[in-house]
Amino acid sequence: MFDQVSIIGCGLIGSSVLRRINKNKSVKKLVCYDNNKSVCEIIKKKNLSNNLATSPVEAVKNSDLILISIPLSSFENLINSIKDNLKPGSILMDTCSVKTGVDNIVKKLKIKNSTWIPGHPVAGTENSGPNAGFSDLFQDRWTILTPDKNVKDSEIKKATLFWESMGSKVKIMSVQDHDKIISLTSHLPHVIAYNIVKTVMSSDDKTKNDIVRYSAGGLRDFTRIAASDPIMWKDIFIDNSSLIIDAIDRFSESLSQFKKAIEEKNSEKLLQIFEKSKEFRKSIIKAGQDTDKPDFGRK
Amino acid sequence: MFDQVSIIGCGLIGSSVLRRINKNKSVKKLVCYDNNKSVCEIIKKKNLSNNLATSPVEAVKNSDLILISIPLSSFENLINSIKDNLKPGSILMDTCSVKTGVDNIVKKLKIKNSTWIPGHPVAGTENSGPNAGFSDLFQDRWTILTPDKNVKDSEIKKATLFWESMGSKVKIMSVQDHDKIISLTSHLPHVIAYNIVKTVMSSDDKTKNDIVRYSAGGLRDFTRIAASDPIMWKDIFIDNSSLIIDAIDRFSESLSQFKKAIEEKNSEKLLQIFEKSKEFRKSIIKAGQDTDKPDFGRK
Repeated sequence: MFDQVSIIGCGLIGSSVLRRINKNKSVKKLVCYDNNKSVCEIIKKKNLSNNLATSPVEAVKNSDLILISIPLSSFENLINSIKDNLKPGSILMDTCSVKTGVDNIVKKLKIKNSTWIPGHPVAGTENSGPNAGFSDLFQDRWTILTPDKNVKDSEIKKATLFWESMGSKVKIMSVQDHDKIISLTSHLPHVIAYNIVKTVMSSDDKTKNDIVRYSAGGLRDFTRIAASDPIMWKDIFIDNSSLIIDAIDRFSESLSQFKKAIEEKNSEKLLQIFEKSKEFRKSIIKAGQDTDKPDFGRK
Repeated sequence: MFDQVSIIGCGLIGSSVLRRINKNKSVKKLVCYDNNKSVCEIIKKKNLSNNLATSPVEAVKNSDLILISIPLSSFENLINSIKDNLKPGSILMDTCSVKTGVDNIVKKLKIKNSTWIPGHPVAGTENSGPNAGFSDLFQDRWTILTPDKNVKDSEIKKATLFWESMGSKVKIMSVQDHDKIISLTSHLPHVIAYNIVKTVMSSDDKTKNDIVRYSAGGLRDFTRIAASDPIMWKDIFIDNSSLIIDAIDRFSESLSQFKKAIEEKNSEKLLQIFEKSKEFRKSIIKAGQDTDKPDFGRK
């Protein structure tokens, strides 16, 4: 499909792509780059790549596909350093969870020769770094691509085939639609998870010890989400701030109605909400997005 | 330990106790009662008990331990019907998630002959009913007992041994301490989970379909919690309303500070919150309350 592929940034996502490409044996030459030395050590130690470049420019030279998998806060610098060294006809992709910011950067910096196809594999775990990656991370998960309308179908097809070779299902949508949906399915849940942990942590010390001990009653599930990569989430919250604030406002409105129902001991209203939630859970399981084993099959 | 044990209410919790007692073969006579005919059919069909009583009074007669595992909204009627038929020297226990309400009911109705030891096994799944039960539900989980100060140590010891025979670790605390801790570890997370589902469900239809499809980004974890037994949760929210409202207010305060940090694009403040959340997650895993497998080991 592509003779040479370059992966810039080898954390959870980048190293999982690396592992899958190695497994597929579908690429003639695979080049990696990461600005963190300890990440490079792990890539070497785990034999994930023989071609570890020493600079971004060296990494992208002659590559047909360049996949950038780094936090947004480093994105502009990186694009700036590689933009004049991209191979004519190549495809440039990323994996950021918010598409507006990276899209604006790439357009502002006017990359040459390469077709920009922003992407977001909706997959991940609460662990980060190259040790946390695995070749099946994207299996049966969605990858959303958000190319501009003027991007040629042939190039979108190539990007699609690439993500399908990762095990992904691929969906094309606009940058705006993507950021709105993800603000609800991913960013709002993370905001909430951080805040629920923040709330219980503000208790006195004696209570806090008991809270840890009895967290199996529901809390522990939230702490999993709230344990995700801090730098990445800081970037996401700032990059998608207006949509996230919108989602927070809607959530707060819902919460104050709910509080009112509890204050009024309004059984009927509460039951109505609960029944609808159960239905929604069923639709998620039906859509193949979760397991119906109780407790996620922890037992 | 006990010659005769009666289980009133054979849903997720009651039927799991039943299964464990059968497995342990520790009781001479095991009597069950449930006011729901289809539950009784399942108990029979699954051979969980040979002694299915036709009334609560018949169920408790001559029993040394009576365990009541029914929603709070049916609790007062049930206690009223059995209170004059309890065996002298017997122990009366329950499994409700809030202790204030049941404790007040039992004290108001002045039960005779029996020692009242309220209890809460902090275990459960999002599924309910007798088909969802299993004998290891309480294994290595906590059960909190909240007996009055004047209850004899010998009786508390018997109740403790019973829950230990279910596989549980047992902790004694006051009704007040229990309800406060659980309002944070369990009730607040459930309030939040219901509201996050309510928020995303209030989106337009096109967005809603996409939300289901891309829910793996965080949302699906919340929908699991929000799929729990509606009747039980309605009762819990109303019974523990003042502590839950208190928790909601603390959460809302935390959320508005967080929103401010996003609006101000305050990276430092956000990073601080995220790092603390990660630490808290680690303490929960260290306390043996959750698995450190990514994604709860879904993969």
